[in-house]
Amino acid sequence: MTTMPTPETANADASTRETMRSLIKHHAGAGLAFREDRPVPEPRAREVRIRVSKVGICGTDRHIWEWDDWASNRIPVGIITGHEFVGVIDKVGSAVTKYEPGQRVSAEGHLTDGIDYNSRTGNAHIASDTTIFGIDRDGCFADYIVVPEDNVWPVHPDIPDKYAAILDPLGNAVHTVMAAGVSTKTVLISGVGIIGLMAVTVARAAGASRIYCTDINPPRLELAKKLGATDAFDARDDSWIERVRKETYEGVDVLLEMSGAPAAMDQGFRALRNGGTAALLGLPAKSVDFDFNKHIIFKGCTVLGINGRKMWDTWYQMEKLLLSGRLELDDIVTHEFPIEDFERAFETMISGEGIKVLMNVNG
Amino acid sequence: MTTMPTPETANADASTRETMRSLIKHHAGAGLAFREDRPVPEPRAREVRIRVSKVGICGTDRHIWEWDDWASNRIPVGIITGHEFVGVIDKVGSAVTKYEPGQRVSAEGHLTDGIDYNSRTGNAHIASDTTIFGIDRDGCFADYIVVPEDNVWPVHPDIPDKYAAILDPLGNAVHTVMAAGVSTKTVLISGVGIIGLMAVTVARAAGASRIYCTDINPPRLELAKKLGATDAFDARDDSWIERVRKETYEGVDVLLEMSGAPAAMDQGFRALRNGGTAALLGLPAKSVDFDFNKHIIFKGCTVLGINGRKMWDTWYQMEKLLLSGRLELDDIVTHEFPIEDFERAFETMISGEGIKVLMNVNG
Amino acid sequence: MTTMPTPETANADASTRETMRSLIKHHAGAGLAFREDRPVPEPRAREVRIRVSKVGICGTDRHIWEWDDWASNRIPVGIITGHEFVGVIDKVGSAVTKYEPGQRVSAEGHLTDGIDYNSRTGNAHIASDTTIFGIDRDGCFADYIVVPEDNVWPVHPDIPDKYAAILDPLGNAVHTVMAAGVSTKTVLISGVGIIGLMAVTVARAAGASRIYCTDINPPRLELAKKLGATDAFDARDDSWIERVRKETYEGVDVLLEMSGAPAAMDQGFRALRNGGTAALLGLPAKSVDFDFNKHIIFKGCTVLGINGRKMWDTWYQMEKLLLSGRLELDDIVTHEFPIEDFERAFETMISGEGIKVLMNVNG
Amino acid sequence: MTTMPTPETANADASTRETMRSLIKHHAGAGLAFREDRPVPEPRAREVRIRVSKVGICGTDRHIWEWDDWASNRIPVGIITGHEFVGVIDKVGSAVTKYEPGQRVSAEGHLTDGIDYNSRTGNAHIASDTTIFGIDRDGCFADYIVVPEDNVWPVHPDIPDKYAAILDPLGNAVHTVMAAGVSTKTVLISGVGIIGLMAVTVARAAGASRIYCTDINPPRLELAKKLGATDAFDARDDSWIERVRKETYEGVDVLLEMSGAPAAMDQGFRALRNGGTAALLGLPAKSVDFDFNKHIIFKGCTVLGINGRKMWDTWYQMEKLLLSGRLELDDIVTHEFPIEDFERAFETMISGEGIKVLMNVNG
Repeated sequence: MTTMPTPETANADASTRETMRSLIKHHAGAGLAFREDRPVPEPRAREVRIRVSKVGICGTDRHIWEWDDWASNRIPVGIITGHEFVGVIDKVGSAVTKYEPGQRVSAEGHLTDGIDYNSRTGNAHIASDTTIFGIDRDGCFADYIVVPEDNVWPVHPDIPDKYAAILDPLGNAVHTVMAAGVSTKTVLISGVGIIGLMAVTVARAAGASRIYCTDINPPRLELAKKLGATDAFDARDDSWIERVRKETYEGVDVLLEMSGAPAAMDQGFRALRNGGTAALLGLPAKSVDFDFNKHIIFKGCTVLGINGRKMWDTWYQMEKLLLSGRLELDDIVTHEFPIEDFERAFETMISGEGIKVLMNVNG
Repeated sequence: MTTMPTPETANADASTRETMRSLIKHHAGAGLAFREDRPVPEPRAREVRIRVSKVGICGTDRHIWEWDDWASNRIPVGIITGHEFVGVIDKVGSAVTKYEPGQRVSAEGHLTDGIDYNSRTGNAHIASDTTIFGIDRDGCFADYIVVPEDNVWPVHPDIPDKYAAILDPLGNAVHTVMAAGVSTKTVLISGVGIIGLMAVTVARAAGASRIYCTDINPPRLELAKKLGATDAFDARDDSWIERVRKETYEGVDVLLEMSGAPAAMDQGFRALRNGGTAALLGLPAKSVDFDFNKHIIFKGCTVLGINGRKMWDTWYQMEKLLLSGRLELDDIVTHEFPIEDFERAFETMISGEGIKVLMNVNG
Repeated sequence: MTTMPTPETANADASTRETMRSLIKHHAGAGLAFREDRPVPEPRAREVRIRVSKVGICGTDRHIWEWDDWASNRIPVGIITGHEFVGVIDKVGSAVTKYEPGQRVSAEGHLTDGIDYNSRTGNAHIASDTTIFGIDRDGCFADYIVVPEDNVWPVHPDIPDKYAAILDPLGNAVHTVMAAGVSTKTVLISGVGIIGLMAVTVARAAGASRIYCTDINPPRLELAKKLGATDAFDARDDSWIERVRKETYEGVDVLLEMSGAPAAMDQGFRALRNGGTAALLGLPAKSVDFDFNKHIIFKGCTVLGINGRKMWDTWYQMEKLLLSGRLELDDIVTHEFPIEDFERAFETMISGEGIKVLMNVNG
Repeated sequence: MTTMPTPETANADASTRETMRSLIKHHAGAGLAFREDRPVPEPRAREVRIRVSKVGICGTDRHIWEWDDWASNRIPVGIITGHEFVGVIDKVGSAVTKYEPGQRVSAEGHLTDGIDYNSRTGNAHIASDTTIFGIDRDGCFADYIVVPEDNVWPVHPDIPDKYAAILDPLGNAVHTVMAAGVSTKTVLISGVGIIGLMAVTVARAAGASRIYCTDINPPRLELAKKLGATDAFDARDDSWIERVRKETYEGVDVLLEMSGAPAAMDQGFRALRNGGTAALLGLPAKSVDFDFNKHIIFKGCTVLGINGRKMWDTWYQMEKLLLSGRLELDDIVTHEFPIEDFERAFETMISGEGIKVLMNVNG
């Protein structure tokens, strides 16, 4: 299950090879390019270099691949993409004290200088100076990635690479679920894409008593039920709201909004009971025409904006959930490809044939 | 300071007078009518009858007076209006166990049958079956009002009638401040109408370290500073935001939104730091075009819908604040009139000459 | 599953029978007496009379049976005992508004006048004027019990009498688990008597990631594992502490202390991580010599005193847990006897042969 | 107010002087020695060197001075003592990124490697590997101290050295007050030594509505009232408890225990209302015979162990409190001496003539 390199191969990797394989955003347009000529990066004093074992393709990577408005405004051409990975530390900077070569690790992708208010009070995930690797600087779709020591997460030996590669998106689901608090509660998850599906199994393991899901994709709704949803509804017809309100105390205790669709937000808040909690992770494409009186103020609701993952509360919660054996992730991680087959990997993900698609680098 | 009737007058009131004075919504149009022919109501088994001493005019009463769209859709013609008051219990129903005639009391205006989820878990203020006296059934602009025993609040002897008459709106301010939590925090109050001004003195007494206010009414901004605001800004120019962000940790910890104005909401969320808390009390006139990504999700903010007052947490907090001597209410309660002068009272309030205007009934 | 009486039998019960069966504390010594001459009680204005279907025997009832120091100091001779039950409302007082005859209900046993601070702020379970039926006034080991309307809990039709009869002790377990918060957390339950065993299945359903148990009764430890404990240890040897500290982050997140044994408290706090939460339900027999520095202050722990159940948060949580189908109670509710066999019922419970023992009254 | 060195003197200090003044624990017995031959320390890669301006004498320093049991078991002979200070960064290690020479700073005295659960989840103050400078390694009673970059706190320019030197003990008071939560609450502070007195002014600024204090030192009780206590009682007579219970809702909302005296703990819990919160900072000299049933379990109380200060929530709260101008510290910081007069400084503090006593080093 582990991927500890023998000393020979580790030495060979680190000393004889000076360039590496990587997927880069090679031009201001669709697609990525596979290159073998990128120099292996050197860690600075407080950084570690990680030999990447396995990576996951995120919805954000799809935006970068497709080069949509967001991507063309944010992503520097020439960057190595990717931010979901597991690997093995290969080299540490001169001032690194916490880790050493040979440790299997993942990393938090949100980087901060650690000097603003949130960085210093346990909320670095919403620091004002955040940058993200694979988006603002070189990412993990490569043989090696360099990250600050403070961003490293040592992976527990009982967690296989297949899951360790996707701690980033799983962390989004865990952060959303845990921020809202679901223990014994009735929960509605609006939108069962990758993270919504993860949220189903996470919410169940975290103690939700009933889990309702909505989406406009019937196979995903079926999968949600398999993963533990009490019931799953096609959102194109809103008659489910009345039913859910009857099966609960006039509405669910918790809404986990994971679609970003204004119609789903409207339905979700209608299905939320007075005094309930809504955690918003899905990003609407633009401003939303929203009835604050009806949805929030008269209801006395609590609304939580969810972004990233808490460092490191979320990661510890995730570790405990994974080690408990109560997460059902095998139906979510559907495909693995060698990194050289990146085009098939992206197509599988974009077509919807695959859900979470992994690529093996040195796994 | 107290208004305890002598036994003689109490008996006289209860036994010899069969009709009473009241302000009623006499037709489907502007204004109220003063009538002396309304029968004195009888309390049912679990109700108490209260001889009203002093009442406050709420912004809601203004809507009823002006007969705007909301009022014409909600208010039954013929109703006795008013919901802010203090008085003395005059008669109790046969099954009343907690109170007795002679006790000086106010009452929570939100009535519920007490059987829904929120009523039974300490959140009766957002019960699904709530009705409000003075809006859905006869209110307190009269010699007597009948209220359920469970809605009665006994007034501490050290709190004068002048303040006891306005526990309802003061409770809105206290609930908003305490729900957000302001102790040691930097706070922005957007909108310093009656409740916004109360929130200034409440936030200061509750431990806010800095209090910024915005409004488009310069005299109210001046008053806010007198009541304890660190600074107060004219919202027609948003240059204050940058200044506040510099004086704080890139934004205030807490936003108390008390205007309902979309522009104020936008400014307020811009001035709120990442990870901050916004408590929304002001009611927008209609749906708001709102940037959830920028204002809530990327910021990782918490948004609280605020409605009414908690029964009875808010009332206890209010009592403690009033008894601490740290609330500055004298500049907020500006006028008192006999109830017979109700037209002057309403005019004084509507013109903005007065802020909180009281009427004496049997005070 | 339900026990709705036909109108005929209901009428017969209520109108023709004037005395009833009951178990009373007949003298200041061990045992209870079965009597058939007790008058059927009449509900007062705000009370309901309930025809009892099924009752549970609590550890407190054992103290009353054995007439130990606590019991002889607290229990009035002549009282009808028992406080765990389910039944059907048979008659309501003149001022009752929330319930009607024919409804299947249980009731919260903590009675309060509803006028103190805690009663009015959602914490009636710790009101200063609390009395308990079956302890301070007549209880439920009888054909009929009268309780205040405000103490009635309507039982969901999908919850069978077998579980509805034990909502009181199950509520102790749920309140302890939910006060501490166990979602994704590692949990130690010290003491797996009736409520400790219930806490195992509740903690698992509420989302605990690992559950450790300790006791000095090996069969109960085995049962704890069957109910979902990750591991269970004999507390007479404390070597388990080191093992648990290694399997967790230097100690469990949560301690649920359910034994009242000073040695178990000491072990439990040693096994708790810095910053962890301890919820104390077990009652030590006397003062404890306790190292506050080591166990609480240096550790930065939170300690919660747990008493009764929250009205009604705990009851709603319990209902959701029961309806979720995730509680394993069948191995805990081991025996049922007719109330006439009360001596066998008590012996079965006292000997440890049974765990939770029920008696059928009109079930 | 600031103490920024001119470049000349800074250079002079750093380059020409190779030894420095310091107060060291020179032998295993009472007292400290003033030495001028200690080498100026060099910062390692992630450390900064600070030229000390002003220091405070802590109760812990008194234990070290007096060489009691605790001190003789914990303190290495030869160590430079002291942990409360303000100074100016003089030199930074090669990998330091957040600070630079010339910045006025204080520092958190709890050092951790940053790898345990609490260090990584916002609770480094209770990390399992904590060491403290001035106790486990060289402290600040010297011309220079070296601390890890991660422990540095930049001091706001509007906070004078006199207060910046005592952020450590003030932080204990702030952490205790804020952990318990005092906004609008009634508070009892048992023990008004240095930190107890600070807690009075902090609790008042943080929004407490009533503050009661107890101690057995009448002048300190008088000072507590001057600083904002509503009332202050001699704890040798416990009749105050009944009075406080009457003036509150049958007990205070919050107990801040700052004496460590078992009798004060017993009184404090008796004076706490059901459902109240007790924050324990005072360290009992040994185990306490404690009635858990009466004080915690039946009362449904919450008890918080308080240790150190949160990094950095507490420091930010402290900064906001200091900048608000609402803390009254001038009567608490009673004396300042040159460091060469350390014997008089310690005597002033130990005799009780002084409360918080400062020493000027390069101030």
